[in-house]
Amino acid sequence: MKRIAVLTSGGDSPGMNAAIRAVVRKGHYHGLEVMGVYRGFSGLIQGDFTPLQLGSVGDIIHRGGTILYSARSNEFKTLDGQDQAVRKLQEQKIDGLVVIGGDGSFRGAQQLTDRGFPTIGVPGTIDNDIPGTDFTIGFDTAVNTVIQCIDRIRDTATSHERTYIVEVMGRDAGDIAIWTGLADGAESILIPEESYQMDDIVDRLVRGTKRGKKHSIIIVAEGVGSAREIGRQIHEKTGYETRETVLGHIQRGGSPTASDRVLASRMGAKAVDLLLEGKQNQMVAIQRNEIIGIDFEKAFQMKCQPDMSIYQLAEILAI
Amino acid sequence: MKRIAVLTSGGDSPGMNAAIRAVVRKGHYHGLEVMGVYRGFSGLIQGDFTPLQLGSVGDIIHRGGTILYSARSNEFKTLDGQDQAVRKLQEQKIDGLVVIGGDGSFRGAQQLTDRGFPTIGVPGTIDNDIPGTDFTIGFDTAVNTVIQCIDRIRDTATSHERTYIVEVMGRDAGDIAIWTGLADGAESILIPEESYQMDDIVDRLVRGTKRGKKHSIIIVAEGVGSAREIGRQIHEKTGYETRETVLGHIQRGGSPTASDRVLASRMGAKAVDLLLEGKQNQMVAIQRNEIIGIDFEKAFQMKCQPDMSIYQLAEILAI
Amino acid sequence: MKRIAVLTSGGDSPGMNAAIRAVVRKGHYHGLEVMGVYRGFSGLIQGDFTPLQLGSVGDIIHRGGTILYSARSNEFKTLDGQDQAVRKLQEQKIDGLVVIGGDGSFRGAQQLTDRGFPTIGVPGTIDNDIPGTDFTIGFDTAVNTVIQCIDRIRDTATSHERTYIVEVMGRDAGDIAIWTGLADGAESILIPEESYQMDDIVDRLVRGTKRGKKHSIIIVAEGVGSAREIGRQIHEKTGYETRETVLGHIQRGGSPTASDRVLASRMGAKAVDLLLEGKQNQMVAIQRNEIIGIDFEKAFQMKCQPDMSIYQLAEILAI
Amino acid sequence: MKRIAVLTSGGDSPGMNAAIRAVVRKGHYHGLEVMGVYRGFSGLIQGDFTPLQLGSVGDIIHRGGTILYSARSNEFKTLDGQDQAVRKLQEQKIDGLVVIGGDGSFRGAQQLTDRGFPTIGVPGTIDNDIPGTDFTIGFDTAVNTVIQCIDRIRDTATSHERTYIVEVMGRDAGDIAIWTGLADGAESILIPEESYQMDDIVDRLVRGTKRGKKHSIIIVAEGVGSAREIGRQIHEKTGYETRETVLGHIQRGGSPTASDRVLASRMGAKAVDLLLEGKQNQMVAIQRNEIIGIDFEKAFQMKCQPDMSIYQLAEILAI
Repeated sequence: MKRIAVLTSGGDSPGMNAAIRAVVRKGHYHGLEVMGVYRGFSGLIQGDFTPLQLGSVGDIIHRGGTILYSARSNEFKTLDGQDQAVRKLQEQKIDGLVVIGGDGSFRGAQQLTDRGFPTIGVPGTIDNDIPGTDFTIGFDTAVNTVIQCIDRIRDTATSHERTYIVEVMGRDAGDIAIWTGLADGAESILIPEESYQMDDIVDRLVRGTKRGKKHSIIIVAEGVGSAREIGRQIHEKTGYETRETVLGHIQRGGSPTASDRVLASRMGAKAVDLLLEGKQNQMVAIQRNEIIGIDFEKAFQMKCQPDMSIYQLAEILAI
Repeated sequence: MKRIAVLTSGGDSPGMNAAIRAVVRKGHYHGLEVMGVYRGFSGLIQGDFTPLQLGSVGDIIHRGGTILYSARSNEFKTLDGQDQAVRKLQEQKIDGLVVIGGDGSFRGAQQLTDRGFPTIGVPGTIDNDIPGTDFTIGFDTAVNTVIQCIDRIRDTATSHERTYIVEVMGRDAGDIAIWTGLADGAESILIPEESYQMDDIVDRLVRGTKRGKKHSIIIVAEGVGSAREIGRQIHEKTGYETRETVLGHIQRGGSPTASDRVLASRMGAKAVDLLLEGKQNQMVAIQRNEIIGIDFEKAFQMKCQPDMSIYQLAEILAI
Repeated sequence: MKRIAVLTSGGDSPGMNAAIRAVVRKGHYHGLEVMGVYRGFSGLIQGDFTPLQLGSVGDIIHRGGTILYSARSNEFKTLDGQDQAVRKLQEQKIDGLVVIGGDGSFRGAQQLTDRGFPTIGVPGTIDNDIPGTDFTIGFDTAVNTVIQCIDRIRDTATSHERTYIVEVMGRDAGDIAIWTGLADGAESILIPEESYQMDDIVDRLVRGTKRGKKHSIIIVAEGVGSAREIGRQIHEKTGYETRETVLGHIQRGGSPTASDRVLASRMGAKAVDLLLEGKQNQMVAIQRNEIIGIDFEKAFQMKCQPDMSIYQLAEILAI
Repeated sequence: MKRIAVLTSGGDSPGMNAAIRAVVRKGHYHGLEVMGVYRGFSGLIQGDFTPLQLGSVGDIIHRGGTILYSARSNEFKTLDGQDQAVRKLQEQKIDGLVVIGGDGSFRGAQQLTDRGFPTIGVPGTIDNDIPGTDFTIGFDTAVNTVIQCIDRIRDTATSHERTYIVEVMGRDAGDIAIWTGLADGAESILIPEESYQMDDIVDRLVRGTKRGKKHSIIIVAEGVGSAREIGRQIHEKTGYETRETVLGHIQRGGSPTASDRVLASRMGAKAVDLLLEGKQNQMVAIQRNEIIGIDFEKAFQMKCQPDMSIYQLAEILAI
């Protein structure tokens, strides 16, 4: 192995730059050349490569986003596109590829391995919805972004009964909602993985108000429904004033937290180790605080479930 | 003048606590006793007073919200309510009252002065919409809260044409939208004070995209319409993907900025000075960087206009 | 078990309030009464108790410091003091005590158990230096505080060779230095657990400068020496300008991160579970991402070592 | 006027990038070409120019530091150096130069004007120590950085008498110390412009402790002495524990506040206006909330004094 490449794919997440830096620096440490691919699989097909030196990744560890950009590629979904991608990698004499992204990106990586090209995945997505790893790069930052926003709501001091509905990311996964819900003492947390009864939510609100709570916060993962609609229903049933916040893409950005930078650094470095060991078709994962390699196949067979003990604890502690 | 009181009224804003602290400490410095009134005019009518010592306002200068709480009072809108309020103040042997809040609260303060009770207003609202003063307490904090949120959006690095619509506070006043628009390089700023043509907005977007902008940000004051609706229209006309963020009440909270703490401290202290000078029916204001007292009457005759030179500059610089 | 108590002891750390909240709410959930003890073992001896209701711990999950205050107690180091403490607990009909603090505080807790009084420890300290647990409450926040400070240094853009020396907490433990060093790409990390050669540090600096680094950052744990002294030595050997930052107690404060809030909530709740299960003389710990109880004795026999793989990775990635 | 240039010089400050952006975009708006000069006067002498297009300054408004870098130049202090600089400007057919920096940089600008080359200064320094302008670009950000750090100290909740000494920037100017002192309720503020009596400081500390203050904060501008030395003296006289924080260069960095971005945008745009009006040898200033041009000569004759009314107010409110 003499030359490797790295790309970022899918929705970006804070810490991707720290992971790129780790791949580059760990690669150079072992005497490898490292190429960056711009705009994910789309750039791969177009052969949009750039050599990454030690200095190319200086001063990026603390930056959100990705210096390699990211994109979705329809062309890569075709057999022709995949063949073309392998050809471009071979033309550049690249021996292995690190793909930083979500599970969609990992399926792309698998296509390359199926064609005999060694790839390693690094889980980068704010949603924490990749099976096989306890945490993904960017999740901790997104959760901290949300709670810093919600903390501000706590300051508003009215004597009205007022209910704040906060819509957070999570089309299919409730992790952001659950963690921010516990971390911010939300009264109710609505996630895609669990059905809910509006009456239970209302009961909790009314109970909280009766015991003197100055305000109530309800977190809604976007997969469940819109903050506006939930707010409307609550207002109808309780008469309480409701106020909505939709955080949107601000959850995707920002300087990564220490935890995400450390995780990204460890994972990026591990990806290089795995390539050097001759592994392929694996993703890097953190399991029980240990950085490991795990076969894509094995990971994809696992079910990605949020930690329901945290969900239940949030419910108990917000009484 | 031996004893004064202070209350906060209307929507709260960051820096109100710093203003309360200044009233209390400056009062004590001049040998006055200071009483706090809980929950604005509503608490006034109910006689909900508490003595405020030097230590009562320790460790609050950096806290959002208001330790005296705030509320709206329908009862105070009646003559009976107003009479009752004056009676309660007299029972407590209070010689002057400082009202921290917005222009609605100042009209309440005027009712008391009409009944012979000396009041001084201190402008506290995030909207910066009080005539007679260049800035209100809380505006700088709200603007910084918004830009910190929007800065995160700048990190997301895609190769799609993507447009972010951010809805900020401002039912009748565009100041938050204008300042955050300039400070964040927004492509377009929609404010209640100015009509807009959707075609102009679309033209700017398309032009920006053509010259290679990776993303565009449009700020919408809530008085103009919802982010979702504006986003829908833009998508229809351009085909660009749009993403909405509705910041809501997170703009009301948070630790006040240095500038708001200093402004609040100067204004709170000035209110005590004015009472000691025998002034009444005035509000404290900052004009051209100077803290002054100005008659409510005079202020209310002024027109409250946002600084349109900043609006125009934002437009020029975001080309 | 009908009534339990909770206290915070030793140097405070962000997340202690979240842990108190969890003890109180989880206790009430199981039908227990919960008493708070002010100012640690000192307040225990003086019988300074207060009942904690559900509402007593409202709106504290996001606050730094501890609402129960913390103190060091010389009296508690005497047998008389310890007897007196047990007497006060028994007078209040308290059946179990949760002690939130560092290992010094846990030794105090053991003294009570030796006298037959059930205690459970919860590890709260920014230093991450308690054996038996992978992480302590407050560590993640402290690390994030440090990196946010250091990130600012990265912005200053000079063409001089300039070296920044940052002194962080850690009298005996290098964890804060190591994590912040990796997370901020520090050129060198000086920790109490490892001796260092000034010549190696200088070599790395010179090498970095030669390859075009605009600035270099050296992290020094306070146990190793002062930033000023290290800076003086580097300047002497290289002629580079050095600038020192001593972060001091700002590392102890601030709103806890999401991760610390979640950890504190889980640990506080677990402490109540352990008491209900009849456990005593144990501390709550997180090991490999699992919350467990572990005997004080067993924990104290373990060696508390920082994760040297992170230290080594930091060194590799900062080339 | 067809082509202008812009450079940043001296110690950098947050908001310089926003000012560069404003110069570039305002210039293009009026049909001018804009060149950037790297590394201040040093780059000017070496002819290190780069054309700045609209897109060259995209996505920089929120970044600390300066994309044009900054440096000190000994060569520029010589007549030869200055001649060479003018020659390079003329070679590039540049008709006017905007110099963003402190008063040292403005004296450099004057040297060019003395040789017949039109220059306009824009005040960028965190110290707020440029005569003729109420505020400089970067000051508001630095003050907010300091108070965010000090706020964290407020959280630590001990029952000891503990005094925190915080050393802030300001070799000759006390503005940062004064503003942060008022904004954080510091017990004492030590600035270069005012002599102090250690006995007064001690008296205030003892008085504060007696009335129950949990902690005291003393702000020291670096020009007065080191935090360590002040702390030592206080400990000697009172026996109180003291803890030192030296913020150093973290005050220079960070994303600029909204206020600094708006100020920088207005000032950068004004600099272009002044050049177009045929002005030279002027600096842009904000006076009483208005952006104006003022002759260097006139500004340099003014005395740069901090606002002592804020200093005195801080003293009154921290009783």
